[in-house]
This record gives sequence, C-alpha cells and structure tokens, in this order.
Amino acid sequence: MIIQLHDDCSTEHKALIRQNVEVLNYSANEVSTFHKNYLVCVGKSEFDIRNIGKLEGVEDVHRVTEANKLVSRQWKVKPTVIEFGNGIKIGEGNFVLMAGPCSIEGKEQVSSTLDFLSEHKIPFMRGGVYKPRSSPYSFRGLGMDGLKFWAPMARKAGKKIITEVMQVSQIEAMLEYVDVFQVGARNTQNFNLLDELGKVNKPVMLKRGMSTTLNEFLASAEYIFSNGNEQIILCERGIRTFENAYRNTLDLNSIPVLKDKTHLQVIVDPSHGIGLRKHVEPMALAGVMSGADGIIIEIHEEPEKAFSDADQTLSYKEAEKLVENARMTYELRGGLK
Amino acid sequence: MIIQLHDDCSTEHKALIRQNVEVLNYSANEVSTFHKNYLVCVGKSEFDIRNIGKLEGVEDVHRVTEANKLVSRQWKVKPTVIEFGNGIKIGEGNFVLMAGPCSIEGKEQVSSTLDFLSEHKIPFMRGGVYKPRSSPYSFRGLGMDGLKFWAPMARKAGKKIITEVMQVSQIEAMLEYVDVFQVGARNTQNFNLLDELGKVNKPVMLKRGMSTTLNEFLASAEYIFSNGNEQIILCERGIRTFENAYRNTLDLNSIPVLKDKTHLQVIVDPSHGIGLRKHVEPMALAGVMSGADGIIIEIHEEPEKAFSDADQTLSYKEAEKLVENARMTYELRGGLK
Amino acid sequence: MIIQLHDDCSTEHKALIRQNVEVLNYSANEVSTFHKNYLVCVGKSEFDIRNIGKLEGVEDVHRVTEANKLVSRQWKVKPTVIEFGNGIKIGEGNFVLMAGPCSIEGKEQVSSTLDFLSEHKIPFMRGGVYKPRSSPYSFRGLGMDGLKFWAPMARKAGKKIITEVMQVSQIEAMLEYVDVFQVGARNTQNFNLLDELGKVNKPVMLKRGMSTTLNEFLASAEYIFSNGNEQIILCERGIRTFENAYRNTLDLNSIPVLKDKTHLQVIVDPSHGIGLRKHVEPMALAGVMSGADGIIIEIHEEPEKAFSDADQTLSYKEAEKLVENARMTYELRGGLK
Amino acid sequence: MIIQLHDDCSTEHKALIRQNVEVLNYSANEVSTFHKNYLVCVGKSEFDIRNIGKLEGVEDVHRVTEANKLVSRQWKVKPTVIEFGNGIKIGEGNFVLMAGPCSIEGKEQVSSTLDFLSEHKIPFMRGGVYKPRSSPYSFRGLGMDGLKFWAPMARKAGKKIITEVMQVSQIEAMLEYVDVFQVGARNTQNFNLLDELGKVNKPVMLKRGMSTTLNEFLASAEYIFSNGNEQIILCERGIRTFENAYRNTLDLNSIPVLKDKTHLQVIVDPSHGIGLRKHVEPMALAGVMSGADGIIIEIHEEPEKAFSDADQTLSYKEAEKLVENARMTYELRGGLK
Repeated sequence: MIIQLHDDCSTEHKALIRQNVEVLNYSANEVSTFHKNYLVCVGKSEFDIRNIGKLEGVEDVHRVTEANKLVSRQWKVKPTVIEFGNGIKIGEGNFVLMAGPCSIEGKEQVSSTLDFLSEHKIPFMRGGVYKPRSSPYSFRGLGMDGLKFWAPMARKAGKKIITEVMQVSQIEAMLEYVDVFQVGARNTQNFNLLDELGKVNKPVMLKRGMSTTLNEFLASAEYIFSNGNEQIILCERGIRTFENAYRNTLDLNSIPVLKDKTHLQVIVDPSHGIGLRKHVEPMALAGVMSGADGIIIEIHEEPEKAFSDADQTLSYKEAEKLVENARMTYELRGGLK
Repeated sequence: MIIQLHDDCSTEHKALIRQNVEVLNYSANEVSTFHKNYLVCVGKSEFDIRNIGKLEGVEDVHRVTEANKLVSRQWKVKPTVIEFGNGIKIGEGNFVLMAGPCSIEGKEQVSSTLDFLSEHKIPFMRGGVYKPRSSPYSFRGLGMDGLKFWAPMARKAGKKIITEVMQVSQIEAMLEYVDVFQVGARNTQNFNLLDELGKVNKPVMLKRGMSTTLNEFLASAEYIFSNGNEQIILCERGIRTFENAYRNTLDLNSIPVLKDKTHLQVIVDPSHGIGLRKHVEPMALAGVMSGADGIIIEIHEEPEKAFSDADQTLSYKEAEKLVENARMTYELRGGLK
Repeated sequence: MIIQLHDDCSTEHKALIRQNVEVLNYSANEVSTFHKNYLVCVGKSEFDIRNIGKLEGVEDVHRVTEANKLVSRQWKVKPTVIEFGNGIKIGEGNFVLMAGPCSIEGKEQVSSTLDFLSEHKIPFMRGGVYKPRSSPYSFRGLGMDGLKFWAPMARKAGKKIITEVMQVSQIEAMLEYVDVFQVGARNTQNFNLLDELGKVNKPVMLKRGMSTTLNEFLASAEYIFSNGNEQIILCERGIRTFENAYRNTLDLNSIPVLKDKTHLQVIVDPSHGIGLRKHVEPMALAGVMSGADGIIIEIHEEPEKAFSDADQTLSYKEAEKLVENARMTYELRGGLK
Repeated sequence: MIIQLHDDCSTEHKALIRQNVEVLNYSANEVSTFHKNYLVCVGKSEFDIRNIGKLEGVEDVHRVTEANKLVSRQWKVKPTVIEFGNGIKIGEGNFVLMAGPCSIEGKEQVSSTLDFLSEHKIPFMRGGVYKPRSSPYSFRGLGMDGLKFWAPMARKAGKKIITEVMQVSQIEAMLEYVDVFQVGARNTQNFNLLDELGKVNKPVMLKRGMSTTLNEFLASAEYIFSNGNEQIILCERGIRTFENAYRNTLDLNSIPVLKDKTHLQVIVDPSHGIGLRKHVEPMALAGVMSGADGIIIEIHEEPEKAFSDADQTLSYKEAEKLVENARMTYELRGGLK
C-alpha cells in the first residue's frame, strides 16, 4: 500500500496515520522525495483501504501487491516524465536519443561529437570518464578532468550529459557537471550507490545487470525512489547467456514486461546489447518496436581508433542512418492500431 | 570449399575431381540434393582454388571457411527461395505469415482457423498433431487421424500445412499431407531425424533448441542440406536463461547474425518466445524489425479453451491486429535507408 | 496417487477400481511394467485414500503429490536395484563404475580396454557406436558393425556393455548386444525414443540434457517407466552456462536433490561434465561425495589418438588412480556420521 | 612479465629497469604491496627475459602470459599463506572453517555462536552487519553497532571475524574490528571497492559473482593485489543458471580450475551455493573433495528464527556433523594417491 501525504500533512496527522497502519500489522516506511511525501506500507493482512483514505493528511492511497511498490504501475499508471529545460524531456511521447563515445578522450573528440548531435537534434551526449574495466591495467577514463572540459562544451551546445558514476565518493564532485547519472551493469545491485543517488536531485539511468532478473532490477530502482529521487530511467543492455556469438544477449522481452509493470521510462542500449557494430542498427530498431522509450548508442568519428569498445561503436555515417530509421520506426509505432 | 558439379558431370570426371581434392589433404563429401550435386570439401591447407575451378565437370567452386558450409552465405549469397505453388513462396521479399492453434483439436476448430487465415490472406496454417509434452500423462495430439481430416480442409482453402514431426517413423505417413515439416526445439539436435528429413522433397522448418548456439543451429541445418534437402527455414523461438518472468527468452540478436551467416530464411516465433499473450505482439513486431523474414504465431477462437499453450495463444481479434501491424512494420523496413 | 495392483487382479476388479478413481475426478493411467501393474492417477480433489486401499485387487496405494509419480520417492522409498547377473548389480550399496572410450574404434582397442577393466574390477564398459556429432562431416561411429565385434568380446570378459542409442529404429538390432541403453544429452526429451525404450526389458541410462531442469529430467524418466520399464539410471553430465572455462558445467547440486526426489540410481559423468582431462578426477571424487551412486568415465590407451573427445579422455594410468581414489572416497562416505 | 624488485632497489635502478621494459613496447605498472615491490609489465613482443633478470635491482623475473598476472600460478607456484597469529592461518595444509549466522542479531546470539565455534575448534566466525538485500524495506543489518559488540566478544574467545564490507566509506571504521573483509557476490566487480581494499593491510575474501566468469573473477582479485594487498582468498558461492530447483548453482568445476590457475586459496560456500538446508552438507563435502581449501557455512541456534537466510542455515547439531565429516573428508583427500 502506498499512501500519498498532503504537502501540509502535520506531524501529528502523520503519526496518527502510521498508528492506523501499524495496527494492521503493516510496517510504514516514510519516503520523502523531491516531489512528494509517502508512506510505503508492507504487510499481508486484508483490510478496507477506504479507512486509510479518509484519515486527515492522506491525499491518496493505493493498494500495491507487487514487492517493488513505488516504481509500480499498480500505483501510478501515468508514465514518469523527466524535464531537463529548453524543451528537452523524457516521457510524454518524446523519443529519447542518447549518443556519444564509450570514453571521453579529449576536447576535439567532444567537439566533433557535439557537432554531430546538433546536426541530428540528439539531445543527450553519453561518454565515460570513469570506466569499469575488467583489468586493472586498462585505461580507466579521464575522471573529473574529462568531465570538467566536457560539461561546459556540452552546455554551450545545448546538450545534456549522461555519464557513469561508479562510487558514492564521486557523486558530489560530479553533481554540478552531470545531467543524468548512469549506473552501470556491474553496479545494478550496489545498494549503497543506489541509496546515495536517491538523495540527489538529478535523474539516474539504471542499467540492468548481466544476470539481474526484472524483479531485482525494479527493486534496485525502488532503492533510488525510496531514498527520495523519483527521476529514474531504466536501461536494457543485454544479459549473459550461453551464446557467445555476441558480446551480450540483448533481451528485448524485458521491454514490454517492464513497460507493463512500471511507470518508469525504459530505453535500450543496442551497442552493448549485441556488441557487434554491423548488427547494432537492427537491434536498435527492434528495441524501438518492442516498446522502448528511447535508445542510447556508442558513436565515434573514427571507431577503429576509439580508446574502448571499438567493436561496437558506430561511425557518424552509420549513426546518422540508424537515427533516421529509428525515428521513422518510432513514428510508425505511434500510428499502429 | 564447395564444388558445384555440372548436371552432366560424368563418373570419371567426378572421380578425377575427388582425386584432385584429396591430394590437397581435403576430404570430399558427395552431396546430391533435389536441386544439384556438390562436393563439400573439408581441409586446412592453402591452394589456388582456380586449379579446381578449371577441372572438367566443375560448374562453380567457392572457398567456405565456416564449419557449416552448404548453409553458408560465403558460398551462396542469394537468399533461398521456397516455392509452394499458387503464388505462395518463402523468400524474394515475401513476408511469411504462419498462424494456427498449438494443437489440432477437431474439424470445427480447423474450419474456423482456415476462415480466419483466408480472411487475412495468411498462407500457412500451423497446428500440432504430435505434441512433445513434458509429462507422459498430458494430451499428446490427435496424430495421423488429426492430419487426415486437417489436410484436405486446408487444401480446399488453399492453405499450406506446417506441423511438427517428432520421429523418423512418422515421416512417411505424414509426407503426403504436410507442406512444411517442423522440427521442434527438443529435436534440434536429433541428428537421425535431420538425416531423414534431408532425404525428403518437402521444406523443413528447424526450430532453435533451448540451449543451441547459433553455430550448432546452423550445423543442424547442414545435416538436412547435406542429406539432400535444400529447402530449409530457420526459426528463432527463444532460449533458456536465468530470467523467469517469461516462458523463454526470445533472442532477437540471432536474427541479424543468422541473416548475415546463412542464405536460409529466418522466421520468428514470438508466441513460444515470450510465452505471454499480452506481450506477443511487441515481440513479433520487434522480430520483424530485427530482420526476420516472417512470423509464426499461435491463435485460437477461444484461447482460454485451447488444449495446450493457452497462456500464449492469441484470440482472432488480437491476431488480426498483430498481422496488420506486422505487415506495416515489414513494409516500413523495406523502405528504410 | 499410485495404485499397485495385485498380480492376479481381475479385469472386473480393475474396472471397478478405475471407476472409483474416476468418480473422484482423477484420470487413471494404466501402467504395466516388466515387474508390476499400476494405475497412475492424476487429479486434484481431496479424498480418503483408505477407501481406495480397501478395494479388491489393490495391493498398495500411495499419495504422490509430485508431477512425476512413478519415479518419485514419495511412493517408493527404497532405491531401485538393477540386477545384471554374475554378481553385477546397480544399487544396494554397490559403487557403480563404468569406463571405456568415447568411440569404439576397433578390436584391439576393445581388447585393451577390457583388459584394463578386468584388472581393476570395473564391471561396465562404455563406448559409442552411434555418435551424435554436431557436424555431419565428422566421424559418426562404427554402428552395428562395431557393436557386433564388441559384444562377444565383452561377454567373454564378463563385462557389461553400455552404449548410446540415438533413434527408435536402432533399438531392435541393438537389443541382443547391449546391456544398458544410454540416452544422450541431446535426446533427453526425445519422447518417442523414451516411449520405445520403456517397452524394452533392458536397463536405460538417461543423461540430463544441456538445459534440462531436474523436473523435466524426472519427467523424461517417467516416460520410460510409464511405458513399462522400471530399470532406469539417471546420469548428471553437466549443463550449459555462461562459463566457458570448461566444456560443460557439471552440476553436482543435482545429485543430492535427485537422490531426495527419486528412488532411481544417479551416477555422474565427470568426463563430459568438465571436459578437461586434468580436472576429471577431482570432479569425479566430488561427485561421489555429493552422493552419487557411481561414475562413468572416458578412457583410452592413448588419449591423444582417440577418434573423439580426446581432450577429456584419461589414460589408463590416470584412470587407475581415479578409480582407486573414488573407491576410497565412496568407502569413506559410507562411514560418515 | 612480473619483475620482483630488491627491497633496496634504488630509484635510479628502478627507472633504468622501466626504461629497459618500455623499450620492448611493454607498459610497466608499479605495484607496491605490504610485502614486496613489483613491476607488472604488459606487452606482446618476444625477447630474452634473462636480459631483464640481470639488471641491477631485479630480484626475480617471470614470464606470465595470463591476463591476470599477479594472482597467476605462472609466476608464484607456492600457494599463498595468510597468518592470523595464535596459530591460526590459511594455507599450508590448514583446513579452513568459517561458520556463523547470516546476520549478527545480538549479544546472546554472538555468544552462543562463539561457544559453538570454540567447542568445535572453528577459528573464523562469519556474520553480516551490512546486508545487501534486494528490497530496500528489508532488514539491512546492525551496522557498526553490531560490529562493536561482536568484535570484543570474538577476540576474547580467540576467534577471527569475517564480515562483508559493502562500500568504500565503511572500510575505515570497520578496519580495527574486522579480521577478514568479505566482498559479496553483488560487488565482485565493484572496482572502486576492490581498489580501496587493496590499500588495506587486512585479508580480503572475494566472492564470485552470480555471473562472473573465472577470468573476470581473477581480474577482480588482480585489482586488490595490484593496489597493494596480497592477502586474498577466493570463494565459490554459486552461479545463476536456468535451474530453479536450488537458490544458486554451486559450481564446483571452478575449484580445480582456480587451484590450477592461481596461487590464492579457494574456499566454498555451500550454504549460499545450493541454498537448501538439507543439501548443504553433501555440497560441502563435495567441495572439499573437489580441492577447496576450506568451507564457510551459515549456522544459527534456531535456524527458523534467523533474521535472514533461514532456509539455508544449519542448526548447531547439523553443523557439528558437517564439520566432523568435512574434516574426515579433508584428511582422506590428503592421503589419496
């Protein structure tokens, strides 16, 4: 059960509501987000929800049987909308496009990428400054230095930055430069990181882990939401299976299932998903058709020279074609019966 | 290396060609299909392929480095076309649609299904008369009795029959009634069944097994082809992963990869793939967008009453919507950049 | 519910029992094995089982809630024993040892293997004459020719033969030569093959498929049993996972779970399980310790020259060490608290 | 290539060694651990390693072709030994036993557990104070409060503490109370946490992630080592597969393969591995037999009342039996041929 409280619900009324909930053998977890105050109640007994609804201080109350309550569509049917200003938003029928290199490498590369994004009206630039690498001897990104030259360039070009945060201690320094924090597949269940990102007033894009079930994925989103941050985007990026013809197995089944279970926006990362440059486009278009709200892709002026992920990175020419086709596909989807 | 022989290549010439191949430390496997005669040569040494090409009796010769040679696009770039007469064909830009119940249950059901197919110009009717069931106490299909009343009804309606064959001993009796033999996911590596279906002059649709890699899948097709039958269709129907939010995990990554590796047609089965009725349509459309040549779906006049697979079977109304949307999607795909 | 019938239960009594079962909304499946006659009853309603027990012709009756009834320990607590004559048996505390080459290659090889088995008191010789190979161009075994020279040699040496049967049509010819039919991992759900092996009065060893769940595995055994053959042995041989450091992932978790669920004997195949020669022994010993009733291993006088599976085949010296250590481990297990 | 430097290698000599390495197109990564100074060199060209060996300041040099160099047995054949004082050590033939509750719940529970450990000479007490839970509404552990009453009690009883650390910010406060830091399966690739644990002079037990390959697992250990901490223990605790008859699939294949590849100690967690109380013992014994250096198990005075993991937690009586049998098994293993 989720109880939405009136913005001016008094401490006394809240205490009284808690009391009414606890008497039913439910635990009441207080959640204050940047938007609203809630009591998330977990329990099993049957009762008449109207008795809660009529208490002072209660704005609305919803029965939610799923374990992941705040992210559930059982409570909030309307999809989440995230506003970025300047007409950029995620949700409400906007097709989300994010593109950029795997790693931020230097100013020239950033400038060239921003030009491409501007030319093709792509609002979000992705790029890693902290890179999770399986070997400690690999290039691990430019860190804050990279972010510091990237951010002003992006702002000047009117583009929003999405980049991966790998640990709690990075959040504060990154905060003023980043528009969307990305949580990578290796950190999907890094609960402390999720807790802290829940306390930040910036959107978070959470990637599905290599072997994360959809219920666990939603539970990770619930961590962020229940700590106070409602601005969450989910991203399918492929799971690990026995098949080794591709880097990962992009699991598009997750898209319609997630869209059915949650009010959060869901986007697809075909670059990591299949990990093979020549097959990124069909997987992107299939992702759009399966119901995704957007796509995020890796691009590079000269993919062969990229510092990382060269095998799955598209050239500008390939990316241009993909983006146009994805937009046509999205439009078609909107016009289907 | 694949050597295509002239139709009138003499025994002496063939022997001479073999000799030239074996001297290079290659084994020469003779393959005679209903279309053509080949020598499939397996070996490792380097040599000038033109020396083979100029031998008497050789029509054409191709270097094929992949293990699965006859099904490889390294040899035959043009996609396979399968003709069924009356304007029905698979390949050459036809979007393949197959629909029908999981199990053939009776004449009324068949008649109702055929009416639906006719109304919506769907050329292939699927339906099981031999059903692989995990429990020996479950309904296992009507067998030849079912096929015997189904086939004349389908022919009268101008529809082609696709149905599963489970063992070698069933082939002969089924042969005159069936238009496409289907090999189910549990038999993808039933090599004896594949051998025998290679000797039959009827198309075979081979489903990917629950844990079959794409290379193994192509090897199974190679079994059929190397026994003499070139009319093979591949079908992606979902793999087994850790995720249990769906019955199987439809793996659309396989579509562009298979289309790149083989000249065979590839279709998608979203019904088994995701196994959840309300999500069959988005997966079907995503399948089309990923590059599939067609789709096969389970439909029933009253899905709730179906003898088997009720949870993934579409009503006629749902199927009508899916088919129209799939056709629009296929058309869009054809018009992309 | 499983009803064991008296050996002299009359047709009338049987009809009456069926009637009593069907009135409870249970289906009654008649099963006649080489040992006994049963009615396997599937249904859901609650009733007093004693009312069935007291009917004429009923020897015993058991409630079995599991889906796989005849193989369940809910019905038959005592482990299955399989007698081979000459003091060879599986069950009753015998530690089962099976060894031999992947493929039967010739008389010399058979003779050398039998000498090794005799020297080390290993009662079962494994060896393939029909080989499932992923490529149609690979060596596929000597077939009946191999079996015909192997069988008399094995009998003379007092050894029992276990070999794979791949299809129904092979059963009849193999029957007089084979002591245990093996069903390979690619045929675990080849239901027609299971049906026919259920009608044969020879033991069957059923291997777990690469992605077969334990419930499906037991269902496949139920197919054999319900067709009349109670002499079934299960074999864990590794499943397919994301890990590619080994050929398969030998899943020893299955051993205690299967021993808990079924009265069938369970043995372990570490050779295919891990597929790496130098690690076969520790996996064999671990298998024994996890509760397996025996092990089956691949051996060859000169593993490097084996026609197939060379990478996982032990030399005689390695096998001798493994067998001694496995026997010591089995003995220790028997003496644990 | 790994170059071990003399303890008194001068800055000038080190610079000269680097120069000699870099001229070969190798990168030289300087690693200073609490034990030793190394240059870890990554590159591809062929050269005569003796030319490096004879440089001033070089103590020893080893060619290491594996990607994970410092943890490789190609460099250091002798297994790692970790000393804890008071005769407690890991390695050198000691069979490692770790036992305790999933979560630290209170003083009485700690006291009861310590009594059990003392009685059975088990040197390590496990217990969680920070618990990774998939739902944010579940009990997440007592945190530092728990550790603060647990540690003095454990020290008084002469027992060592192993407990999970979930994030970098916890390390400092935990440091004085903890004897072994545990990294859980969700953090196996939390590279920042690994980096920081590499700077700590306390042993770290790294658990394998749910879908971590063995190479990735070793790479994670390489992170810790290359940051300065050589005291690393690996722990197999089950992977995620399609099988859902158990909580995880304990993968014992990893044991002999890891023991072959690395000089680190490897222990097994059968409690999480199979996750079913009645099957923990056979999996523990199988783990010992597969070559593990020790086991870690979950125990509780009253398993049914445990705050978490009740289904896989053993009673003291069950644990007593397991420990005795595991010791007998370990002894037997030592005496095998």
